[in-house]
Amino acid sequence: MQQKHVFDDAIALEPQRGDRFTGRTSAAYGNMVGPFGGMTAAQALNGVLVHPERLGEPIALTVNFAAALEDGAFDLVARPVRTNRSTQHWTIEMTQNAQTVLTASAVTAVRRATWSADELPPPPVPTRAADTPRAMRDGAIVEWVKRYEMRLLEGAFPPVWDGSESDSRTLLWLRDDPPRALDFASLAALADTFFPRIWRRRATMVPIGTVSLTTYFHASGNELAAVGDRHLLAQARAFAFRNGYFDQSAQLWSDAGALLASSHQIVYYKE
Amino acid sequence: MQQKHVFDDAIALEPQRGDRFTGRTSAAYGNMVGPFGGMTAAQALNGVLVHPERLGEPIALTVNFAAALEDGAFDLVARPVRTNRSTQHWTIEMTQNAQTVLTASAVTAVRRATWSADELPPPPVPTRAADTPRAMRDGAIVEWVKRYEMRLLEGAFPPVWDGSESDSRTLLWLRDDPPRALDFASLAALADTFFPRIWRRRATMVPIGTVSLTTYFHASGNELAAVGDRHLLAQARAFAFRNGYFDQSAQLWSDAGALLASSHQIVYYKE
Repeated sequence: MQQKHVFDDAIALEPQRGDRFTGRTSAAYGNMVGPFGGMTAAQALNGVLVHPERLGEPIALTVNFAAALEDGAFDLVARPVRTNRSTQHWTIEMTQNAQTVLTASAVTAVRRATWSADELPPPPVPTRAADTPRAMRDGAIVEWVKRYEMRLLEGAFPPVWDGSESDSRTLLWLRDDPPRALDFASLAALADTFFPRIWRRRATMVPIGTVSLTTYFHASGNELAAVGDRHLLAQARAFAFRNGYFDQSAQLWSDAGALLASSHQIVYYKE
Repeated sequence: MQQKHVFDDAIALEPQRGDRFTGRTSAAYGNMVGPFGGMTAAQALNGVLVHPERLGEPIALTVNFAAALEDGAFDLVARPVRTNRSTQHWTIEMTQNAQTVLTASAVTAVRRATWSADELPPPPVPTRAADTPRAMRDGAIVEWVKRYEMRLLEGAFPPVWDGSESDSRTLLWLRDDPPRALDFASLAALADTFFPRIWRRRATMVPIGTVSLTTYFHASGNELAAVGDRHLLAQARAFAFRNGYFDQSAQLWSDAGALLASSHQIVYYKE
């Protein structure tokens, strides 16, 4: 029997009455303080994924990080507020000690085959995943980074923190560690694995925290399953850093070049 | 005495008990069926803007269009679910006949002056607003389009609907008509004024509808006020069209080249 993947352990929810679930933060996905936000986003989405009334598959997910989570148990409500013929709208709230720590919304939909086209091709890739050195494996200062295989192609972590400015773009090969077949929950987490764009831009390690994160899913569950545990090509950059907040836009492609998700967030920074 | 701008009439809300408001769709911002989604987004944000407990100014807004609005009255709840030292998280719901037609979330924040930088410069502009012909004024088939001055620079409405494919990008000068000093509510609406990217991409007029819209505000209220009623430079493009849904990413710059907002949406399309 195959052992359960650490990611599946971490997103697991215990159904309660109605639209209610309980879960726990995972030490395996621990951040500097509290859990990795991508894991929290995956847990919130999982309330929709395991809900018995779910219609279709995720199209959009927005997660608002209202307060720092404490390590330990949380309560989750995932409620289908409107069910149409082919779409369903969800509101999600995570609480700890009866205080809101996260609000979220999701849209699920039954998709039909239509004319389709990718307009944003993957950028040229200098080396395949197998030929790209792995970054930050042993040097990781936070636990969650060890749960991901990151092979940086361009825009690496600044080699020295000397305040020298560059652009904020990063391109890398990315997957779970140990490898795990892709699905909506893991893709939601992968979309939040980029190190803060302001660190790249400024080579200065200022405190940051994601405030709101939106991910659009372009592929079906079957298409994600077909990617299996192969690496994704992932890119992120910022558009504007302004008075305490910067945005980030990210794209995640399959190794075959299909855009699987586009993701956007706004992030608090100090100084 | 100056007459009230049609936009201010349209977003007006009547405070009710607690976090509750009532409002009405506006014929001046009517779409093919029901109201222009950007107006609905502005009305939802206005529940936050006029709320007596608001802390700071909008940073992020996500609006989920759960069902087609009917012309007429609506109920709006804008609730501050978590207030921190410098940020506040809001959940918003719009109902008609006790049915959810829209869910939304917003983050407001007290911003402090920090190191700042714009990374995405405005694209090169061939002509200034005054020298750019106005599009779609008299030919507009829906009412709300007449409330905006659109001067298209690149990626115009397809001149013929012949199914010939192009990229989906559009660049234009944009402002309210009649001109109105910029603020958060009008910027939230302006971010949704782009004609559907799939029409541009395919030169085929398929039915569409925005499902979820997220806007990040990079500027303060004072900075928006300083823009006044001058044109914004606005750009939108899609990344992927896939099985019934495409995304759109948009940027809105001041005429001085400052990025005021970045906005993303996912849109349903038929066929």
